[in-house]
Amino acid sequence: MDQPSFTEITELGEFGLIGYLTKNITIQNATTIKGVGDDCAVIDHTGYQTVVSVDMLVENVHFDRMYTPLKHLGYKAITSSISDIYAMNAIAEQVIVSIAVSNQLSVEMLSEIYSGMLTACKLYEVDMVGGDTTTIPTGIVINITSIGKAKPEDIIYRNTAKDKDLICVTGDLGSAYVGLLVLEREKRVFLESTGVQPELEGYDYVLQRQLRPEARKDIPEMFKNLGIKPTSMIDISDGLSSEIIHICTQSGVGCKLFEEKIPIDPGTYQFARDFNLDPTMCALNGGEDYELLFTIPVTDYEKVKDHPDFTAIGHITDVPGDFRLITKSQNEHPLKAQGWKVFDN
Amino acid sequence: MDQPSFTEITELGEFGLIGYLTKNITIQNATTIKGVGDDCAVIDHTGYQTVVSVDMLVENVHFDRMYTPLKHLGYKAITSSISDIYAMNAIAEQVIVSIAVSNQLSVEMLSEIYSGMLTACKLYEVDMVGGDTTTIPTGIVINITSIGKAKPEDIIYRNTAKDKDLICVTGDLGSAYVGLLVLEREKRVFLESTGVQPELEGYDYVLQRQLRPEARKDIPEMFKNLGIKPTSMIDISDGLSSEIIHICTQSGVGCKLFEEKIPIDPGTYQFARDFNLDPTMCALNGGEDYELLFTIPVTDYEKVKDHPDFTAIGHITDVPGDFRLITKSQNEHPLKAQGWKVFDN
Repeated sequence: MDQPSFTEITELGEFGLIGYLTKNITIQNATTIKGVGDDCAVIDHTGYQTVVSVDMLVENVHFDRMYTPLKHLGYKAITSSISDIYAMNAIAEQVIVSIAVSNQLSVEMLSEIYSGMLTACKLYEVDMVGGDTTTIPTGIVINITSIGKAKPEDIIYRNTAKDKDLICVTGDLGSAYVGLLVLEREKRVFLESTGVQPELEGYDYVLQRQLRPEARKDIPEMFKNLGIKPTSMIDISDGLSSEIIHICTQSGVGCKLFEEKIPIDPGTYQFARDFNLDPTMCALNGGEDYELLFTIPVTDYEKVKDHPDFTAIGHITDVPGDFRLITKSQNEHPLKAQGWKVFDN
Repeated sequence: MDQPSFTEITELGEFGLIGYLTKNITIQNATTIKGVGDDCAVIDHTGYQTVVSVDMLVENVHFDRMYTPLKHLGYKAITSSISDIYAMNAIAEQVIVSIAVSNQLSVEMLSEIYSGMLTACKLYEVDMVGGDTTTIPTGIVINITSIGKAKPEDIIYRNTAKDKDLICVTGDLGSAYVGLLVLEREKRVFLESTGVQPELEGYDYVLQRQLRPEARKDIPEMFKNLGIKPTSMIDISDGLSSEIIHICTQSGVGCKLFEEKIPIDPGTYQFARDFNLDPTMCALNGGEDYELLFTIPVTDYEKVKDHPDFTAIGHITDVPGDFRLITKSQNEHPLKAQGWKVFDN
């Protein structure tokens, strides 16, 4: 196999580099008036409100380059960030990328990251409309600004859950965390016995959930078709437990979650057991699932109950600060926000 | 003097920290529908287009903590970023702050940075509407997303300068760079002879321009009052030379700048000489002035000629790629973008 080429970033300079990285951008949305190339991007949201969110990814905090392909890193940077737009029940249409990389990275490597970002942009119909490219003494830092639009009456906040509302989630939970455990285990094996190739066969689903997660662009559309207007919504980036506590705290209510209802993929369940972990704990505290957590009035139960993308996992109570998990054995445990805390690293 | 207190960031955790840092935020703009606390900020730009820009600041690339007070760092992060909004002839109304800091920073130090940011926000009537707070193995990385609004017909781009247009700048140039030279010199002296206190007296203006620069919020308003609509505009962050070349390249034109016209503060002029530097080169290539560079039709010359904030420094020509400086001795030199290139560090 040929060695991949290594072009020093200094060979292109900042503006040459920006030109190189952004040359394949195509604009997909009519709201994008001006993309890359001026002091600002210009967006026209006539008839809509604008929703904006930022996400910063730091090497060796949010990702490990040893097992993260750079294309996947770029892809995940975009999907994990626009997930916040869908969590407002809005349509993501623009991203702006700030990236700081050390001189150890080649133009080709940076280009891989951009290629992953642009693949996600194309798939999610999002325009990359600007950015900032700079250097850093070591590592990689990526900041994604995601911009979306929504009719004011469609936007769903966190602080509007009501007593007795049903608590629902999309998809399944805990797989991204189990994927991380598999990658960390294989990294240890590889470092301890040089040359041993990682055993990743059979782990496709959990690895994809960790390395190349999707965002739930389909959900706002689905709500519209089903005639559902959630009373509150948030995306699950830090773990179910942390997120439901955000909704409850901001809404001044409590909650009861039923362990047996929490959707966990069967493979993920088994792999968690192999690690001597409780699969429920992986779902509650693992994070990075990028599924949506939302509440609906009980009267809407019929609309979600047999839907393959939704699972009702509990309900809101009128006791502020009281967050409970009802276990499979009918015991009650207090829920705690033990989600992934970057500052505990 | 008492030792300043040092509270570990881990003591508060991510959400405690965000609460602590954002507790003094007050919303000043009617366009801010939802600020900190949800998946996204929500902004209503009915009747306007939205302009968005990002800026990433990296420790030891963009700033040196040895001589940068943390309050000033926060202040500069905001003003240098919203400068891009004014460069579109728009009104800055929101910022979103991503910040990654290592455990070496205390809550109090981070709080100083936020205090500087919030001071700038208050002064410039900008709302801090969200952010991301995370950790990093070493150093500090700040990313500011600036958001503004403008009527579509008011927005001024870079690619619309016309042959014969006058080239004008606001304020004076080169001082921020000379301020940096003073700080670097005093840092060297301090490191070489421990205990020697830095000699900074008399350098107030250049130090303020480097450490705590202002953005030209006043200019879009001034244009309106004077009935001026520039044909193109950009802010001067990388040096006059680099910026005029951006305008010309994107507009498919050339330019002639007259050295004798370039506005340089007398003190800055002298200090540059003390460093054996050509003051004109400091203005052309120094950067970080955050003044505005714009072009106007010749017919508008009367409106700017005696104005204390504006200086006409040259004109656009119809020769694409031909960028010239006419020296005080009437020689012609090609202008080159030798602005501050982060990747050459």
